[in-house]
Amino acid sequence: MNAVELIERKRNGEELPADELREFISAYVRDEVPDYQAAALMMAVWFRGLSPAETYALTEAMVASGETLDLAERLGRRVVDKHSTGGVGDKTTIALGPVVAACGVPFGKMSGRGLGHTGGTLDKLESIPGFRVELSNEELVDQVRDIGLAVAGQSADLVPADRKLYALRDVTATIDEVSLIAASIMSKKIAGGASALVLDVKVGEGAFMRTLADGRRLAQEMLALGRQAGMDVVCELTDMGQPLGRAVGNALEVREAYDTLAGGGPADFRELVVDSAGQLLALSDLGVDEAEGRRRAEDALADGSALAAYDRWIHTQGGDPDPAALPRAAVVRPVMAPRSGFVRELWAREVAAVAMSLGAGRQRKEDPVDHAVGVVCSAKRGERVEEGEPLAEIHARDESAAHAAEAGLLSAFEIGDEPEPRPLILDVIR
Amino acid sequence: MNAVELIERKRNGEELPADELREFISAYVRDEVPDYQAAALMMAVWFRGLSPAETYALTEAMVASGETLDLAERLGRRVVDKHSTGGVGDKTTIALGPVVAACGVPFGKMSGRGLGHTGGTLDKLESIPGFRVELSNEELVDQVRDIGLAVAGQSADLVPADRKLYALRDVTATIDEVSLIAASIMSKKIAGGASALVLDVKVGEGAFMRTLADGRRLAQEMLALGRQAGMDVVCELTDMGQPLGRAVGNALEVREAYDTLAGGGPADFRELVVDSAGQLLALSDLGVDEAEGRRRAEDALADGSALAAYDRWIHTQGGDPDPAALPRAAVVRPVMAPRSGFVRELWAREVAAVAMSLGAGRQRKEDPVDHAVGVVCSAKRGERVEEGEPLAEIHARDESAAHAAEAGLLSAFEIGDEPEPRPLILDVIR
Repeated sequence: MNAVELIERKRNGEELPADELREFISAYVRDEVPDYQAAALMMAVWFRGLSPAETYALTEAMVASGETLDLAERLGRRVVDKHSTGGVGDKTTIALGPVVAACGVPFGKMSGRGLGHTGGTLDKLESIPGFRVELSNEELVDQVRDIGLAVAGQSADLVPADRKLYALRDVTATIDEVSLIAASIMSKKIAGGASALVLDVKVGEGAFMRTLADGRRLAQEMLALGRQAGMDVVCELTDMGQPLGRAVGNALEVREAYDTLAGGGPADFRELVVDSAGQLLALSDLGVDEAEGRRRAEDALADGSALAAYDRWIHTQGGDPDPAALPRAAVVRPVMAPRSGFVRELWAREVAAVAMSLGAGRQRKEDPVDHAVGVVCSAKRGERVEEGEPLAEIHARDESAAHAAEAGLLSAFEIGDEPEPRPLILDVIR
Repeated sequence: MNAVELIERKRNGEELPADELREFISAYVRDEVPDYQAAALMMAVWFRGLSPAETYALTEAMVASGETLDLAERLGRRVVDKHSTGGVGDKTTIALGPVVAACGVPFGKMSGRGLGHTGGTLDKLESIPGFRVELSNEELVDQVRDIGLAVAGQSADLVPADRKLYALRDVTATIDEVSLIAASIMSKKIAGGASALVLDVKVGEGAFMRTLADGRRLAQEMLALGRQAGMDVVCELTDMGQPLGRAVGNALEVREAYDTLAGGGPADFRELVVDSAGQLLALSDLGVDEAEGRRRAEDALADGSALAAYDRWIHTQGGDPDPAALPRAAVVRPVMAPRSGFVRELWAREVAAVAMSLGAGRQRKEDPVDHAVGVVCSAKRGERVEEGEPLAEIHARDESAAHAAEAGLLSAFEIGDEPEPRPLILDVIR
């Protein structure tokens, strides 16, 4: 493998042989190929794309760069996992895990932190006092065996190549290439050792994939990679034009997940949790179809078993499951509707920007996160609002921060005369 | 200036503001922008190209990265320079410098070493016993003042940005982008302080620019950069389908330049020297036009004054000007024509590959060069050959190297039934 020649061939639009691409990536992880050559290759890939065979070779090389966790084999049964490509207000894992576990299917997942306009499950869970996100691979396996459910930070031993390559892509403007995104996500899922996977590809203004066509391309690439690695994968394409649920902000989102597990919660969020649970149960070893899976998920929400699974899980990882223990913002200020009508748009990126300005997210990896602050959308797309009634609540550190956030939050809402309902689940690909 | 954002904008096809591009390059030279970001930007430039304004900003930033040599100001008169984009058998500087100096126009030039299939003037000059190519800027200025002629290696203080960027481009497959090539060449010429410049853009199979259209693009870009820097520039586009002259190999080429200065030499090489000299004299402060410049060049070749200038120059830089002092290869073996006819093609790259295989060139910067070896083409394009008569001579270290080179050299020749003359000078742009 000649690194310069490989870069040149990719630059010229040639398909690279799988073994040479794998060798380039392995050499890069061993620091035998320097950052500048990897950066040049990534930029050439940004322009030329990767073929399915190249994408799989890259994924394989990344999986091979570190340890793998054979969760299914160690538990002696099928393990299911889910992954979302990231959006605004996406607290799905926190409710879905307990539902699936309550239905008797082991759920062990590694999650990430938030960056930019999207939040991360780890940050959300850390708003729970005492909750510990750092589990060793052993602890993760043991906990899934004992209580059927664990969520932890990505282990440093898994897929070090992705960590290194992602950090490089982040500073060389080569993040947003669909095959690179697919390989990055799927390498972690394959190394994580689940037998089946439900992918949630977010599509719309608040997502990385702005159009359904882009979302489909990413979904297809991830499905193909999963299949080649012997994993059962289903991919939902879901709307991220508006935030998922009503709450955006770490503790606020945990509370919303809790409410949903307790039988309440916003309709769209509940719909996604039940639907994803149905997909996961159908992929599990329960031997049920999707409709039966959805029914069991509904039951787990109705009979309190999902909430009990949540309590057990949070408690096992050192946290206090009581939502009253979650931090609260000092100031809660409503934003009022300037006119009556129906919410036509609730721009997810605007809401995220407001939450970020309040301190709920981070622009750089090293930024601190304020777990208490955020936004709760009292009205969502298609809902009726009356002039002078609340559109949303700002949860802020102080009055001045709340005041500064008002105009931005107001501009996230577009109010029209007619309800224009749009679906949450846009498509399912399998 | 945000480096990631700048890379992203270039990647997306935006034109970068001159000040931000200059800042990126300056920061790169100061090691404040890392190699991997520069590599990503270069690859984005490879795909998107640079606008004229961007190319000039890059050139300016490179000139500003080091010292500049105000040769014209320090000599108190116009100084002329020439540059060739590199080809096979191109020993023009070695004959052109003495001709121009003999006509009373100061000629001070910094040259480079050979790499890949093209030779470098410095390597050729170093085949002269005792010749010293390392001159300080002071020595260069003094020598041009004293004897009107100096050729030295590129000073490390001039355009360090080009040195650094070229080394990076070399290992990231981003060499062959026309604006980057133009900026690299012209930054060195502008920093070198000449008032006027004759550019020789080589075009054809043995050149970096394979087509006349590509050659014209490079010529136009360099002309525009020179003009913006206040330099008078003329650009010749010349054929590099076959080697220039007959000799390819360091000492062999010096000998050919010497023969030409002594009134002999191959017709095509002599034509290029006289033509370039005519251009240079017309750009000088002699106040002559091109035709008169050419006449004076012819006179200098005829009356021995050019040869005297050569002797003085080589002697001043410590070398022995007597061609008998040049190293000779141990084995000289002719390659015979397999049939009678006219040479239709004499592939420059094939000849270069043979010379390289004999040890005349280098694949890597650190490779040693054998000054004695090379090839002399007895027949060139359009010339009549008879079966069994010599087509070329191999100058080799030993019999086995000579033998190994035969087949390759033979395959460089295509012999047909009709002479198909093609011009050497394809176009002149000013």
